[in-house]
Amino acid sequence: MFGARCLLRALRSCTSAPCPRHKPSARLSVRDALGARSTNGERVKVQGWIRSVRSQKEVLFLHVNDGSSLESLQVVADSSFDSRELAFGSSVEVQGQLVKSPSKKQNVELKAEKIEIVGNCDAKDSGFVHIHTPIITSNDCEGAGELFQVEPSSKIKVPEENFFNVPAFLTVSGQLHLEVMSGAFTQVFTFGPTFRAENSQSRRHLAEFYMVEAEISFVESLQDLMQVMEGLFKTATMMVLSNCTEDVELCHKFIAPGQKDRLEHMLKNNFLIISYTEAVEILKQASQNFTFTPEWGVDLHTEHEKYLVKHCGNIPVFVINYPLALKPFYMRDNEDGPQHTVAAVDLLVPGVGELFGGSLREERYHFLEQQLARSGLTEAYQWYLDLRRFGSVPHGGFGMGFERYLQCILGIDNIKDVIPFPRFTHSCVL
Amino acid sequence: MFGARCLLRALRSCTSAPCPRHKPSARLSVRDALGARSTNGERVKVQGWIRSVRSQKEVLFLHVNDGSSLESLQVVADSSFDSRELAFGSSVEVQGQLVKSPSKKQNVELKAEKIEIVGNCDAKDSGFVHIHTPIITSNDCEGAGELFQVEPSSKIKVPEENFFNVPAFLTVSGQLHLEVMSGAFTQVFTFGPTFRAENSQSRRHLAEFYMVEAEISFVESLQDLMQVMEGLFKTATMMVLSNCTEDVELCHKFIAPGQKDRLEHMLKNNFLIISYTEAVEILKQASQNFTFTPEWGVDLHTEHEKYLVKHCGNIPVFVINYPLALKPFYMRDNEDGPQHTVAAVDLLVPGVGELFGGSLREERYHFLEQQLARSGLTEAYQWYLDLRRFGSVPHGGFGMGFERYLQCILGIDNIKDVIPFPRFTHSCVL
Repeated sequence: MFGARCLLRALRSCTSAPCPRHKPSARLSVRDALGARSTNGERVKVQGWIRSVRSQKEVLFLHVNDGSSLESLQVVADSSFDSRELAFGSSVEVQGQLVKSPSKKQNVELKAEKIEIVGNCDAKDSGFVHIHTPIITSNDCEGAGELFQVEPSSKIKVPEENFFNVPAFLTVSGQLHLEVMSGAFTQVFTFGPTFRAENSQSRRHLAEFYMVEAEISFVESLQDLMQVMEGLFKTATMMVLSNCTEDVELCHKFIAPGQKDRLEHMLKNNFLIISYTEAVEILKQASQNFTFTPEWGVDLHTEHEKYLVKHCGNIPVFVINYPLALKPFYMRDNEDGPQHTVAAVDLLVPGVGELFGGSLREERYHFLEQQLARSGLTEAYQWYLDLRRFGSVPHGGFGMGFERYLQCILGIDNIKDVIPFPRFTHSCVL
Repeated sequence: MFGARCLLRALRSCTSAPCPRHKPSARLSVRDALGARSTNGERVKVQGWIRSVRSQKEVLFLHVNDGSSLESLQVVADSSFDSRELAFGSSVEVQGQLVKSPSKKQNVELKAEKIEIVGNCDAKDSGFVHIHTPIITSNDCEGAGELFQVEPSSKIKVPEENFFNVPAFLTVSGQLHLEVMSGAFTQVFTFGPTFRAENSQSRRHLAEFYMVEAEISFVESLQDLMQVMEGLFKTATMMVLSNCTEDVELCHKFIAPGQKDRLEHMLKNNFLIISYTEAVEILKQASQNFTFTPEWGVDLHTEHEKYLVKHCGNIPVFVINYPLALKPFYMRDNEDGPQHTVAAVDLLVPGVGELFGGSLREERYHFLEQQLARSGLTEAYQWYLDLRRFGSVPHGGFGMGFERYLQCILGIDNIKDVIPFPRFTHSCVL
């Protein structure tokens, strides 16, 4: 599946942050190298990260990118340069001659005379443990989600008896199951289908969609969570760009002209952070007329989300600390006085609006107990409360809609166009 | 998820078959090397396949296995030996000194003086394309499966109106959707949850389980299909053994003593092939009394499957060419006279029975049309019939139950013990 593998690899991997060292001699950015008109053997130096490696008998091909362009520069080297350290993600400094490429795929390439590894990238599968959370569940994680119920087809006429003895639903999130597993594996993730029985014909909703969800034990601040979220977005996108270049180019060229620059803009900049309270203030001061009047204590609508992203210069923006009353029982109480908030975080991105949702989880027994009581869920979630009785730790997590992610990076307007068999109200073809 | 990644990697990868060359000097099997009593620097030669590589600054660790033992031999080499060709799956010949290992993990290790690469293994992600087939479907692939029906929970009382306009079910197989995609991508696979509303409390059934399913265009014989199936089983198992050694050891030591030898036996031998007709003959001649009398035209039961595997010396056995009347409409007609069969194949394995099921698909329009008419499915499967009108090709595929696979390699008796959140009749915990 387009991009899914990159996402999984991004989550499984821990990459050591490369730290480029500075050299006195002049250098060329990848963008400038690619745009070079005269290529009569001038000597240049390019610094960047390896996006792909192809090792042949007598020659080694690297694609190097430094963020100045979505396109990478092809580096051609003698096979004697080949080493295990020249791996995806390693940062390198390449010196050599910029020459005309014999291939039609690019105008120029860099004939390497010297390749120095600046920062190793030993990306082992050692970060997050992949858990298959169940599809059929007796929980309703969001508390008030639009659920699909599941019963054997022949029994649908005898609703007094349940196949599983209890009412069973299609999962709306693997979060609670991940929380169980994070109590043993510290860092876990799931990637699988989730469901909403929402009567929606919108361009960003599906009845069946994929989510990547992660849960991390011993996390004590939203800052730490946001770092993982931003890292996941950027790493996965870099991997998609390097592994599926042609597919992405196709979308950018024919479906979403201008998207290439917009994406580059997102990757180059640090994501912004504003509080929900600040967000409401920004919306209130907006000259734009909204269908839904922005007000503290009321949820943000798509029109608000899109305005906020634009307001932030089309850079993805984290909105944090939402009113407690708006959020489900498991989010961590900020204990912050009259305007009572929880440690929730949403990431809003250009074109799509909400892409990630996450929070610190309430790890304190008595706080959680009170929240459950207030929601009338104490009995149903006794098992969840028990997780706070036996070795509870501060923890948090997030989920990212996979189809919305594809919309965001490819610039595809309708979510039904990024999934092979879309399911939505009134439609379940094949 | 335990083993899942290995499965996916095994399917995505095309490994070139390594072809060991023979040398005149004496050699030691990995088993003999591991069992060596005296290790006072004797010079030996070991040939096998690389199961793992760990490259450090000044030293390189390889684990080499030749099939003589489930355990691998650790080879320790100078980092100057390091090269990209020393990769997972490459075959090597290592000469050096067998010495006592300083680590407690093994008694001996091979200090390499010479490492020769016999056969390269360039395992790129270039084999099968991963497709996410949908969970909710309006099809019933097996024709007579026990289906779960899906409706919004609030609407379950108004069954005259469907959320999707048509009755919708949880998928029992991604096959038909894969067939759509195989018409463009040639080789595709899916790995995801599938469902059966079977009222079963058996040790090998779940209401929600994972299947890896593959579909291959331009396949014209069961032989070709069986080669992929055997290759998948063996490659995935080798990868699990090398990547999750400690987990497997734990199961083999404490849960299933003797399983290590049984698994070795499966990996070392070529899988057998018998026809359904031969299978029935074997069962009829058995001295054992079966609960269900074996008879041509009747499906094989678990007791039959287990007997057949035992009869074949506890080597996995393919049973091919089943009666047409027993199998769904999409299987390819063998046109073989009075005892009318289709090109179906099941793989039976020790301890579990049926692990894989597959077939050539009926690619001929008129044969398929007749089969659909006979099953009264012509209208519902018009779209499927259409696939035979536009660029139809001979093709085939198979599915493997993932939890049964884990049962088989780990020697775990109850399927509920190889999945974190098992779902079955009367039980949907959390």
